[in-house]
Amino acid sequence: MGQKIKVTIWNEYRHEKINEQVKKVYPNGIHAPIAEGLAAHCDIRIATLDEVEHGLTDAVLDDTEVLIWWGHTAHNEVADEVVERVHRRILAGMGCIILHSAHYSKLFKKLMGTSCSLNWRDTGEKERLWVVSPGHPIAQGIGAYFELEQEEMYGEHFDIPVPDELVFVSWFKGGEVFRSGCCYQRGMGKIFYFRPGHETFPTYYDANVQKVISNAVQWAIPTERPSPLYMDAAPLESLLL
Amino acid sequence: MGQKIKVTIWNEYRHEKINEQVKKVYPNGIHAPIAEGLAAHCDIRIATLDEVEHGLTDAVLDDTEVLIWWGHTAHNEVADEVVERVHRRILAGMGCIILHSAHYSKLFKKLMGTSCSLNWRDTGEKERLWVVSPGHPIAQGIGAYFELEQEEMYGEHFDIPVPDELVFVSWFKGGEVFRSGCCYQRGMGKIFYFRPGHETFPTYYDANVQKVISNAVQWAIPTERPSPLYMDAAPLESLLL
Amino acid sequence: MGQKIKVTIWNEYRHEKINEQVKKVYPNGIHAPIAEGLAAHCDIRIATLDEVEHGLTDAVLDDTEVLIWWGHTAHNEVADEVVERVHRRILAGMGCIILHSAHYSKLFKKLMGTSCSLNWRDTGEKERLWVVSPGHPIAQGIGAYFELEQEEMYGEHFDIPVPDELVFVSWFKGGEVFRSGCCYQRGMGKIFYFRPGHETFPTYYDANVQKVISNAVQWAIPTERPSPLYMDAAPLESLLL
Amino acid sequence: MGQKIKVTIWNEYRHEKINEQVKKVYPNGIHAPIAEGLAAHCDIRIATLDEVEHGLTDAVLDDTEVLIWWGHTAHNEVADEVVERVHRRILAGMGCIILHSAHYSKLFKKLMGTSCSLNWRDTGEKERLWVVSPGHPIAQGIGAYFELEQEEMYGEHFDIPVPDELVFVSWFKGGEVFRSGCCYQRGMGKIFYFRPGHETFPTYYDANVQKVISNAVQWAIPTERPSPLYMDAAPLESLLL
Repeated sequence: MGQKIKVTIWNEYRHEKINEQVKKVYPNGIHAPIAEGLAAHCDIRIATLDEVEHGLTDAVLDDTEVLIWWGHTAHNEVADEVVERVHRRILAGMGCIILHSAHYSKLFKKLMGTSCSLNWRDTGEKERLWVVSPGHPIAQGIGAYFELEQEEMYGEHFDIPVPDELVFVSWFKGGEVFRSGCCYQRGMGKIFYFRPGHETFPTYYDANVQKVISNAVQWAIPTERPSPLYMDAAPLESLLL
Repeated sequence: MGQKIKVTIWNEYRHEKINEQVKKVYPNGIHAPIAEGLAAHCDIRIATLDEVEHGLTDAVLDDTEVLIWWGHTAHNEVADEVVERVHRRILAGMGCIILHSAHYSKLFKKLMGTSCSLNWRDTGEKERLWVVSPGHPIAQGIGAYFELEQEEMYGEHFDIPVPDELVFVSWFKGGEVFRSGCCYQRGMGKIFYFRPGHETFPTYYDANVQKVISNAVQWAIPTERPSPLYMDAAPLESLLL
Repeated sequence: MGQKIKVTIWNEYRHEKINEQVKKVYPNGIHAPIAEGLAAHCDIRIATLDEVEHGLTDAVLDDTEVLIWWGHTAHNEVADEVVERVHRRILAGMGCIILHSAHYSKLFKKLMGTSCSLNWRDTGEKERLWVVSPGHPIAQGIGAYFELEQEEMYGEHFDIPVPDELVFVSWFKGGEVFRSGCCYQRGMGKIFYFRPGHETFPTYYDANVQKVISNAVQWAIPTERPSPLYMDAAPLESLLL
Repeated sequence: MGQKIKVTIWNEYRHEKINEQVKKVYPNGIHAPIAEGLAAHCDIRIATLDEVEHGLTDAVLDDTEVLIWWGHTAHNEVADEVVERVHRRILAGMGCIILHSAHYSKLFKKLMGTSCSLNWRDTGEKERLWVVSPGHPIAQGIGAYFELEQEEMYGEHFDIPVPDELVFVSWFKGGEVFRSGCCYQRGMGKIFYFRPGHETFPTYYDANVQKVISNAVQWAIPTERPSPLYMDAAPLESLLL
């Protein structure tokens, strides 16, 4: 792993500025502890909603191998044009990590083709994430399970396509389960949805959460090969005989 | 199977009116032989692009268990509002069979979340469809393979999500292969993409093709159960202790 | 569904004869309530370990479309020859429902190719089975979830191949989750593993459990088509040119 | 990739000693060009059928991260005990690449749980392997397809479980298709089946074939994490209330 992975963390970055509770947990933004957890093997760039083109210009994306996405309160303010641009990049091979409430982002819904709806409860309760795919690279260094003392509950049914690979299933104190770590291939791109990360809880400081995101970034780096061509194709074999 | 399945066949129905070659093959529309192949166990309704709301009003969809979709030259004329409506119905459980060039329809692309691009060659060549999932209900009554003497070629890479179930893989004379029968679950709905059916060839009169479509319709009928609710959910267990 | 499905329920049938607690719950054998739940649309045959050839002669299997299997304490007493015979039948198309502790049967381990190990706790606690595939035919008639007040706990990691389709995920009071309803295709045969059913609890009298088993039997009926031939094959196309 | 991957290539190594045609193609054994293709980033050990314990002692396996397996004519001479030992190691995390005719090895059949049968024709004909999963790491550096001028044909139906990931599909001149690059997770272990490699053709000298095997080895390295424990488990949460 000589070279560092080029990661862009996109954060909506609104809660942290206006909500005192969130500000206290994430004084430098939700992206700050995520970036710290990746610093050892990634070159990190931050992009946020309120920047021009939400900070996701072609130049930025040209220089991004894996994009991390956190959003919640302002999904609808993300310009369709930027969603289209990022979507195209993912199909062309850019990795993408979708965090928590970004299940409802325009980007994730467009990638999935489903409503991406779920059940939720924001009272803060224990979540225990169980590894169901123990040989998966995203589970590297993780025990049989790990716990988050306080998290928002997300419960099934989660309206997503069946994951290509399912890495984690969550248990919630209040009685629900959830498919919490879901891998997808779309076009050339690898996508990982990771459930935890409500803005009022210190989830992104958790060592296991940081380890999972770090593993996911490594898993999601683009495969080096030519993009498929889609064309009116001459025959490779004689059509006679 | 006492009751007949309520099937709506949606056909773009343009080629057949303006192209002499197509008119000769499908004088009553591409939908006509498809309907004939299903008549024994389905109640068939036809809907076409040039009808009001493309023939896909809420009343029609209320009365549809499985929707079959053929389109090619006018994907962009299909109103976004109708695409949204049909998409919602599929997530709510309506079955959907996507035929041939409809891989590029707004509807299929929205369901898949990918470009749905592929390679093609319209010179007319032999296609041989191999069964790779011999126990699948959509392969019922089909031999190890079946052949179509003249078809348009579609070749990999086909930019779709990995099928939940892959039933057929095609061999083409000119040297390509293609994932030709692909099953998906999206929301409550079952979707089957079936490759053959170029408008200039008599594919939909073929007994095997008709059998596959008939099997797919039976496979795709909605499952009877309550739709998932997505809500702020009270805990099912005490959060104390 | 004019014709009834030919179902053979194989039960180890030992606990019920020697353990007073089990005898009280299942006085006529664990197979009795399972059979009752299927009576409406199946012709039921019972086979047990202590019969000649465990009741699974070729004649019996010739007359079986779907085999249900419950075993626990005497997996090793099942003759390898009978396991081979049943395995061949499944690959040839016979459906198979594997219940609860039969995860550790010779048959299931042979079908899966893994250890089929899991974590367990037999203190009796609440299990809640969530539907994660709401359009799946095995979930027909089942709500968002159903509960069993007292069950043995089975917890992840469950060492099985990734299910071809995952229908249920269980939540347990003691803190675990489990993939509780797992579909597989092996050869021409359809296999469904269903978790609940410890011998000391009245699980098989539960209406939801009976409904799931009934749905699974219908899902697992053999597909009617020729078995694949595996042979030294003459070319279908000229090898010249 | 500072450290080299510890790879053991197991070769039956019989054809090369007794068949003049094979000897000419692989004078140093089929394992020789496979080893050369991996030399840059792997430490290679060779093990063969006629060694004590087939060269697969516990000490050798302790020092193996990925095992490559080629066998054909003497599957039945492989001791069951060694098959059990290797199987256990794979479930515990050792990667495994199964080549060509080893589809019929005891090991692969045990891992798959199916017959692993297929159709074949050994006249030598063109095979074209198409990439169907363009973002998969095993396709790294490979074009849209690659060709082998002379290979044995393997045709569908291939009686395997549905691959967890399907990377290649082959086209054969004689009219067949085949799922040629198949990924599986079993326990903690990653398994890749790769079709080409008949002993009479110089397939393992082909640059694309070598690249695929090299990619597969990297993909299959064990994930570093504790093996799952399977036990009678104390509750993690209170069972009261």
